[in-house]
Amino acid sequence: MRNIRLALTFDGTNYHGWQVQQNAMTVQQKVQDVLGVILGRRPLLTGCSRTDAGVHANEYICNFTTDRTIACDCLLRALNAALPRDIAVLRCGEAPVGFHARYDAVSKEYLYKIDTGPVRNPFLRDYALYYPHALDAGRLDAAASAFLGTHDFRAFCASGGSIKDLSRTVTRFSCERSGPLVTFTVRADGFLYNMVRIMAGTLLYVAQGRLAAENLPAVIAGGERAAAGPTAPAHGLYLNRVFYSDAKELES
Amino acid sequence: MRNIRLALTFDGTNYHGWQVQQNAMTVQQKVQDVLGVILGRRPLLTGCSRTDAGVHANEYICNFTTDRTIACDCLLRALNAALPRDIAVLRCGEAPVGFHARYDAVSKEYLYKIDTGPVRNPFLRDYALYYPHALDAGRLDAAASAFLGTHDFRAFCASGGSIKDLSRTVTRFSCERSGPLVTFTVRADGFLYNMVRIMAGTLLYVAQGRLAAENLPAVIAGGERAAAGPTAPAHGLYLNRVFYSDAKELES
Repeated sequence: MRNIRLALTFDGTNYHGWQVQQNAMTVQQKVQDVLGVILGRRPLLTGCSRTDAGVHANEYICNFTTDRTIACDCLLRALNAALPRDIAVLRCGEAPVGFHARYDAVSKEYLYKIDTGPVRNPFLRDYALYYPHALDAGRLDAAASAFLGTHDFRAFCASGGSIKDLSRTVTRFSCERSGPLVTFTVRADGFLYNMVRIMAGTLLYVAQGRLAAENLPAVIAGGERAAAGPTAPAHGLYLNRVFYSDAKELES
Repeated sequence: MRNIRLALTFDGTNYHGWQVQQNAMTVQQKVQDVLGVILGRRPLLTGCSRTDAGVHANEYICNFTTDRTIACDCLLRALNAALPRDIAVLRCGEAPVGFHARYDAVSKEYLYKIDTGPVRNPFLRDYALYYPHALDAGRLDAAASAFLGTHDFRAFCASGGSIKDLSRTVTRFSCERSGPLVTFTVRADGFLYNMVRIMAGTLLYVAQGRLAAENLPAVIAGGERAAAGPTAPAHGLYLNRVFYSDAKELES
């Protein structure tokens, strides 16, 4: 059996996230359905992570096994011809036999985009949080350094999860401005449910003066969800990159 | 009567252009309807130009008269609160009594955007023509200089128009690349129907070698629509700026 790895990019506006659901269209279902037509049998896709409704991906990695012999470049072209225009395949390649898009991911990087213009930009309405207030990116960049390193992030996790180990290592958190657009970039070895969106909402609390930047380490250490900020809306969030160990990268 | 001037920006994807039509939603109708609710009577908007279905605007100027006394900054906020998220008001101000958004426009500037990436970018599907081939922006920039100056542009005009004077003066035509995105910028004292889209389609013919750059002046001078390239799709086109004489600018 071949193990095929796909790098996708998608506009999540019209999907109820990645994972197959009853009664709602998801990115996984759409790609599986199209693969089923191309391959003659619908494979089960293993995705690198779940994503919420409305969340976008600049790069999303998934894999599936098949005994069909179609060449990877042909499969890529067939997929891009048949997929709806809000999903595209960036790369398609053979992965090592045991490759697993989720378990083998070493780290992931998310972006959170905020439109701070005085008037809502119609072209960003589904692609950035609209927040028409002053945002000092430099000050938030300094405040966000509190997230760096290994912490128990239970204060930045939506309730209802069954995961026991809530410790994650954040290796990058930057806040940058480009015109009216402010972008948070967060990289970590893994993310809890809604973690980036709660981090973004908490930094907006810092910007509003509702939380002092110097208290952020205490909010993290305290582990109380209520002490952190609100969950920022899904449509500002992008899965930007997924990193694998060198050996796994090599063949994809 | 006050004469109010609005600068709008809109994502044209979900509209059948600017001008009111029966049985189809247009930008003019949407803004007029919302103004009608705010002012208590629906005004007639005078737009700076017609736009086709799917065409976008970074800046679109229109005006209307009213005897209501609402302050311009309040009107701007009321409009932006009530308009759908794909239309926004950038500026709202008092115009001179005789100001006419179309007749007083001295020149207009359009952009035409082309996504030349190897894979269709889902985020640009409604915002740029997808053209996954090499485009030498420098070469096209040089070729496009043939458009500069005053010409009878009947070869770059969709048939069916009733306009007799087909002479227009193009003061700028540039082709620039930013990553996979190529942007044509065209400024003229006026535009014939579909003129920018036919110019864009003709430059793509030049890029494909179907038309030699050195023959472009002869295509313009010949005045034969069939000698120019095809009409490029609407969704790559943006009205970018509208210019008025200094006196008209001053008060808006």
